Amino acid sequence: MTIQPTRIDDVGERELLRRLQARIPESPGVPVGVGDDAALVEILSPALVTADSLVEGVHFRRESTPARLLGRKALAINLSDVAAMGGVGRHAIVSLCLPRELELAWVDSLYDGLLERAAESGVGIVGGNVARSPGAVVIDVTLIGESRGPLLRSGAEAGDLVVVTGQLGAAAEGLRLLEEGARLDEEGQLAAVPAWAEPLGEAAEACVWAQLDPRPPLVLAGSLAERGLAGAGMDLSDGLSSDLADMCRQSGVGALVDGAAVPVADAVLELERARGGDALSLALHGGEDYELLLAVDPGDFEPLEELARVWGVSVTPVGEFLEGPPDVRLTDGEGGRELLPGGHDHFAPSEGRSE
Amino acid sequence: MTIQPTRIDDVGERELLRRLQARIPESPGVPVGVGDDAALVEILSPALVTADSLVEGVHFRRESTPARLLGRKALAINLSDVAAMGGVGRHAIVSLCLPRELELAWVDSLYDGLLERAAESGVGIVGGNVARSPGAVVIDVTLIGESRGPLLRSGAEAGDLVVVTGQLGAAAEGLRLLEEGARLDEEGQLAAVPAWAEPLGEAAEACVWAQLDPRPPLVLAGSLAERGLAGAGMDLSDGLSSDLADMCRQSGVGALVDGAAVPVADAVLELERARGGDALSLALHGGEDYELLLAVDPGDFEPLEELARVWGVSVTPVGEFLEGPPDVRLTDGEGGRELLPGGHDHFAPSEGRSE
Repeated sequence: MTIQPTRIDDVGERELLRRLQARIPESPGVPVGVGDDAALVEILSPALVTADSLVEGVHFRRESTPARLLGRKALAINLSDVAAMGGVGRHAIVSLCLPRELELAWVDSLYDGLLERAAESGVGIVGGNVARSPGAVVIDVTLIGESRGPLLRSGAEAGDLVVVTGQLGAAAEGLRLLEEGARLDEEGQLAAVPAWAEPLGEAAEACVWAQLDPRPPLVLAGSLAERGLAGAGMDLSDGLSSDLADMCRQSGVGALVDGAAVPVADAVLELERARGGDALSLALHGGEDYELLLAVDPGDFEPLEELARVWGVSVTPVGEFLEGPPDVRLTDGEGGRELLPGGHDHFAPSEGRSE
Repeated sequence: MTIQPTRIDDVGERELLRRLQARIPESPGVPVGVGDDAALVEILSPALVTADSLVEGVHFRRESTPARLLGRKALAINLSDVAAMGGVGRHAIVSLCLPRELELAWVDSLYDGLLERAAESGVGIVGGNVARSPGAVVIDVTLIGESRGPLLRSGAEAGDLVVVTGQLGAAAEGLRLLEEGARLDEEGQLAAVPAWAEPLGEAAEACVWAQLDPRPPLVLAGSLAERGLAGAGMDLSDGLSSDLADMCRQSGVGALVDGAAVPVADAVLELERARGGDALSLALHGGEDYELLLAVDPGDFEPLEELARVWGVSVTPVGEFLEGPPDVRLTDGEGGRELLPGGHDHFAPSEGRSE
């Protein structure tokens, strides 16, 4: 007789909820936490509120995503949104839809990641709804935060620099690697990798981690907003081409991006050289970098750079906002072409990522 | 050539999101609404926060649930949670997971219901995330509200009356009718009904509406919390037997319920008489009534009753909280028996409701 792993329908909805709630530590500023009809939380007004979800088969595959990292990412993408508004996350509500045959150990690992990421960022989990899903796992997190800015998408002005934090393209390269069979082992080390990337294990591992465990520059975001060092900000979730187009549209300006200035992640440069692919294209269109896209007055760039250095974050001017229609153009030094949004649209029927 | 209805993958994720966001009216106390990385909202601190979701195939079936009513219910169940904490809903975030083949008109109707219910209750929709679902529709709403209480589950004391608002059992009867083929037409009138209920069309229609469009006593809840007229409160979502057991557990008291005092909805009495079924059992175990369960000091019952009358809500004492272990007993006048929780657990493998 083999011992079957415990599934969530072995314990039932109420018991599962109790089990998860019992793991949530008390957090400061939360007079009433999980377990009642609603939580009661202290928050500075006006408060920031955002929600984002991860859906199995659309945003992740269970076989290639360690549950702990999934829990971390579900919170991280919301932390990124609050940071991109110039704020700091405080209270999270976690709604889970789970198929009944799921193993309890998987849900426990998911919660490990959520709690770990929450502790790292000073966030308390104050609500934990669980519903049965007839199919896919859905993790929907709502995050309430405190504003230090705010930093809107609509504040870019002609003459501002287009600035990005960090390096781009690694998360998209990581997604490609996972789709081609790359896997992490229990220790988070690369356990499988497609043949073409085998000689570049370190670069591949870095990209897979960038995809599975994004690290938005949270502290820098709140700090630069407080000092008014950016006129506009948003996070790079869909890809620079899409996100910059949105900022231009909301600000009523155009933008010119210098392809040579875009900080492509070193690991992506290495891997795309081996693959014979286009590293810049991943950095421009790939998405999920969860870095910041900022509009910065040229006079503010130096203080921004100094502040960023304190937090160990690089900031790179990649172009300029311009008067005119909200188009984004890409220059390669000898002229330019229109940079069309190339981020993911999960509803588009022809995309291969999810089906 | 027939004209195909527009599906959401015909327009894509960004366009769908824009389309929905464009329908959301500006709301007071919301300096930054939908369309940026996060919303910026004014709120009294400490604030109430809750989230609840409706999952296709688990909480509703698309073929028997008009989309507009589904939108209303997705918000109503959260309004009920905030009310049951003695508060008033203010800002809602709506996360939708939608299969790509869904008709745009269906999503529009869903939003009709959400916006309508929000307007009725003074709530602003401040965020609207949309993700593709590989299967079921999932509607997850997070609601932020202002506290007038708070009214906790843990405040019941021995000697308090067990009080419920409204009448019970109609939502559960409505669910049974829908499962047996009852349907509403476009005008919201009963268009089909199982044979046994045919002579009782009005009662059947009332029960179907109770299931599809719950009307929690929102104003009374905030008002009684403000006046301190209840020691504990929660909403009746899982059924009186389950919910009262939870209140007893959290308060460390027992309870004795008088079966004869439970206010079974008239429509349920009529229908169960025709069916030869047990109306009281639906009222005790059925769930989804979204009425209030309160612990009321006997001296506060009269002022509570007067206040409730102002808002057109009935309040009924159905038993008493007692010293002792957190068990709930049911008396029928001649002794008693243990009242075991009988509400729905969607993870339990043997339940027929969802699969």
